[in-house]
Amino acid sequence: MFKIVVSDARVFKHAIDSIVNLIDEGQLEIGKDGIGLKAMDASQIAMVCFFMPKDAFLEYDVPSTARVGVNFESLSKILGRTRGGEQLEISQDENKLSLSFMAEKKKRNFKLPMIDMPAGMQREPKIEHDAVVKMQGGNFKETLKDAVLVSSHIAFEAKEEGFYADVKGDGTDLKLEFEKGAGEISEISVKAPSRATFPLQYLEDIVKASPDLGEIVVHLKSNAPLKIEYSVEGAKVSYYLAPRIDSD
Amino acid sequence: MFKIVVSDARVFKHAIDSIVNLIDEGQLEIGKDGIGLKAMDASQIAMVCFFMPKDAFLEYDVPSTARVGVNFESLSKILGRTRGGEQLEISQDENKLSLSFMAEKKKRNFKLPMIDMPAGMQREPKIEHDAVVKMQGGNFKETLKDAVLVSSHIAFEAKEEGFYADVKGDGTDLKLEFEKGAGEISEISVKAPSRATFPLQYLEDIVKASPDLGEIVVHLKSNAPLKIEYSVEGAKVSYYLAPRIDSD
Amino acid sequence: MFKIVVSDARVFKHAIDSIVNLIDEGQLEIGKDGIGLKAMDASQIAMVCFFMPKDAFLEYDVPSTARVGVNFESLSKILGRTRGGEQLEISQDENKLSLSFMAEKKKRNFKLPMIDMPAGMQREPKIEHDAVVKMQGGNFKETLKDAVLVSSHIAFEAKEEGFYADVKGDGTDLKLEFEKGAGEISEISVKAPSRATFPLQYLEDIVKASPDLGEIVVHLKSNAPLKIEYSVEGAKVSYYLAPRIDSD
Repeated sequence: MFKIVVSDARVFKHAIDSIVNLIDEGQLEIGKDGIGLKAMDASQIAMVCFFMPKDAFLEYDVPSTARVGVNFESLSKILGRTRGGEQLEISQDENKLSLSFMAEKKKRNFKLPMIDMPAGMQREPKIEHDAVVKMQGGNFKETLKDAVLVSSHIAFEAKEEGFYADVKGDGTDLKLEFEKGAGEISEISVKAPSRATFPLQYLEDIVKASPDLGEIVVHLKSNAPLKIEYSVEGAKVSYYLAPRIDSD
Repeated sequence: MFKIVVSDARVFKHAIDSIVNLIDEGQLEIGKDGIGLKAMDASQIAMVCFFMPKDAFLEYDVPSTARVGVNFESLSKILGRTRGGEQLEISQDENKLSLSFMAEKKKRNFKLPMIDMPAGMQREPKIEHDAVVKMQGGNFKETLKDAVLVSSHIAFEAKEEGFYADVKGDGTDLKLEFEKGAGEISEISVKAPSRATFPLQYLEDIVKASPDLGEIVVHLKSNAPLKIEYSVEGAKVSYYLAPRIDSD
Repeated sequence: MFKIVVSDARVFKHAIDSIVNLIDEGQLEIGKDGIGLKAMDASQIAMVCFFMPKDAFLEYDVPSTARVGVNFESLSKILGRTRGGEQLEISQDENKLSLSFMAEKKKRNFKLPMIDMPAGMQREPKIEHDAVVKMQGGNFKETLKDAVLVSSHIAFEAKEEGFYADVKGDGTDLKLEFEKGAGEISEISVKAPSRATFPLQYLEDIVKASPDLGEIVVHLKSNAPLKIEYSVEGAKVSYYLAPRIDSD
């Protein structure tokens, strides 16, 4: 039986929110090196790969790998109930996940039912992307907000000269141009020009948990799934998102 | 005919909000010593006893007791329209309650219809409670927010050793333990261990008007109505809330 | 073809919002001296007359008058997407209005379809009002908020002695009195006592874009349309609003 202690439940909540924004239920793999999850969203269009290493925790006592199926929305709401100066103790109590907020002479213990899930993690796809663009989380989110005004999809394009986005709406259009060297873009590296179109709702869910001042890494390949990576509170998260095949 | 002047309408609004959160209409008894009200909520599950003494007002000229039936929601909204630097004058104008916000060369007068109510105040129940727990309003509210995540009812338990709460949800459970001496609890005094279960919605309405940093006094007796007391802006408020009879 | 540069898109948004609060679609007349619009709202009860002179812009290159039919809601949302340190370039690209947010090595270009509108501006009504009242925008908005609690219409009255408002609700009444010299009223000038009643919803839409600390000028004449004027970010706006003919 494992016992994990988080020094600040808020931090753990931020990390878990990178999962909850995309999937409702999933199986955490609590292993020797840390807590992981790989799961497709319900529509099978997007995938999240999450890993929080054991040194992100105050205590991490996991004698053998445990698989814990949880409702992430419930988990996130419970984690959100933390107050200042509390540690969070996570353990298993029969078929429930036990979450105890501990302070001096005071304990609040939530018991969350574990969900039976089919065994085995999803496998991460292997894609050789042709372009990598690094930018601040906040800037990427603002770009998505621009696009949402106009349409439900956005086309990203990476070239030697810069990073571009195209949004074709019903009447209104939007074109974004970030030249190499623009403040928004910290790095562009392009092996081959790449262009693909993605659903905005998924992109918004994917980057919602990214820190505004943290870095987002976007991997592009023409008409192939996008990969987006970022770190949140010591956890590493990667997402894959299927492109819409443009007919034009 | 009475004439009452409030130096800051905001203060009077806060006090009145301790009533409006529980009942829509009721009869204020404007007496020689102050303004009182005792009323059951519409479902007859909860009761509020309110008293604001005359020295909480700037002027208090009440030659004889007046009974004023009011819609508290309307009254609270009107009081909420106060701005800085205004006095509020309360009087009766025929069958209307007159509320005048007064500033130099400026007057805003609301006239609110008085409601005919059956005469006579509710009587306050006489219960000898077995346990008293005192805690900060803010802490009590946070405890209710924890509980709402899990179920619609909460069981309180007071023992020599501390104050406890139990919430049994549909799958998820919550147990709160505050040992004697915990920062959240300023006093526990227990004649006999007491435990009873209450509807959360009513508890939330009851404590909504309590100042976060003020003290809430909870009186418990097994399977008997709870009594909750606090002060708000010079008014004293007590509430009674019927327990749910647990079958377990 | 015109080219107009705004140094801060936020400023232009505030000005345009004085239009969008009242009408959805309209025709901007981009002339040699500035940008104007005169339009009735859909219900033909209210009219807005807008003019932003060319010196409110950083660059203003308009060789000949252009008429641009736009959806103001879309325009306002796009203008709202500005971030710090960006200039906005407005031009025409075939049958679209081109809006480019420009910063170093970065360009975001929205193209908004132009709407075909019947040619010709509305004409501004000529009314000789009998009373003029000047007050701060914020105070006027607060007065409307008072009134909305009570009814859907407000009667304004200007007399030698001051400015008054009357709101008769279903049971509840409100009377506001601002004597000449009250802090809220910066000027009253009355040729003949004037009184008329207006729909609150329209009044709220009309003054929504006015700066709280800026001045609003109200022109009254008994049972005639009201005229309200204010400035917002260098633009001058006037509104006309038809009275409700009182039967009492």
